[in-house]
Amino acid sequence: MPRASDAPRRILGIDPALRVTGYGVIDCAGRTVRLVEAGIVNPRTDRALEDRLLDIHRGIAEIIEQTKPDVVVIEELYTTYKNPMTAILMGHARGVMCLASAQAGVPVHTLGHAHVKRALVGSGAARKEQINAMVTRLLKLTSAPKPNDVSDALAIALAFANMTDHVLPY
Amino acid sequence: MPRASDAPRRILGIDPALRVTGYGVIDCAGRTVRLVEAGIVNPRTDRALEDRLLDIHRGIAEIIEQTKPDVVVIEELYTTYKNPMTAILMGHARGVMCLASAQAGVPVHTLGHAHVKRALVGSGAARKEQINAMVTRLLKLTSAPKPNDVSDALAIALAFANMTDHVLPY
Repeated sequence: MPRASDAPRRILGIDPALRVTGYGVIDCAGRTVRLVEAGIVNPRTDRALEDRLLDIHRGIAEIIEQTKPDVVVIEELYTTYKNPMTAILMGHARGVMCLASAQAGVPVHTLGHAHVKRALVGSGAARKEQINAMVTRLLKLTSAPKPNDVSDALAIALAFANMTDHVLPY
Repeated sequence: MPRASDAPRRILGIDPALRVTGYGVIDCAGRTVRLVEAGIVNPRTDRALEDRLLDIHRGIAEIIEQTKPDVVVIEELYTTYKNPMTAILMGHARGVMCLASAQAGVPVHTLGHAHVKRALVGSGAARKEQINAMVTRLLKLTSAPKPNDVSDALAIALAFANMTDHVLPY
């Protein structure tokens, strides 16, 4: 998806989960990127599935309302969990995240895990430390964002930014 | 879950899907059951996933608002699809149905497919025709509800009713 202008664009990356969902918002304009905000959505895990979904939906809806992204990029779920029901339950969570984006009128994109790694460090089998290091470097942070879910979410946003604006240094 | 009274109770059964989602609302009081309303939620399938989720969420939310069920029973998803991604995508749809229920403050219950069949006709391997016949008989209909998704949704509601009120004739 080529872009004609260098108008700044705000990307919300989400690393979806039923427990700790990381999110990261970046602005990119031309070849520069900037961290806007990042954190986690942390539903109370002692509650029924539908109440956790309520927490997750509300959390993502609030982040979208407050940061007003131009696009939401939600990582694709694996199909390789030992227990297939885990993937289905994660699908429930990812579904309410997609819904929150659609309700706000923000387009949703999907990136696979290996795609994100490859975009950031050149290999779909990159280690977590390599991803952390690249996120830290690109966003000019003093250390890798914690917890890892936040770093992963920023990696998703940066990988998407690179698809259109080539923000990575290679 | 034993109940002390014969107060009428309204049950919304849902057979979740990304394309045609069947729903059926029944009232049960003591050993009697009555059809209130049934139909399908039919998102436009040529749209992006998040827009289909928007249609499904809106459809289920409207049914809940209009029929005011005391409980929503949503069938559990299989884990045995040939393509595991199908189950994950169905999870997205089921997630927004659970969310619509939680947003309306209506408790959600889950029943497995085999459980529904066993509750209605005594065998988890019952054929579709047997389920249709039992739904038709219990709700005193002149023919089986169409499409099958509607009959399946009513079967889910009836199976749940039988767990508490023993509405089935055995």
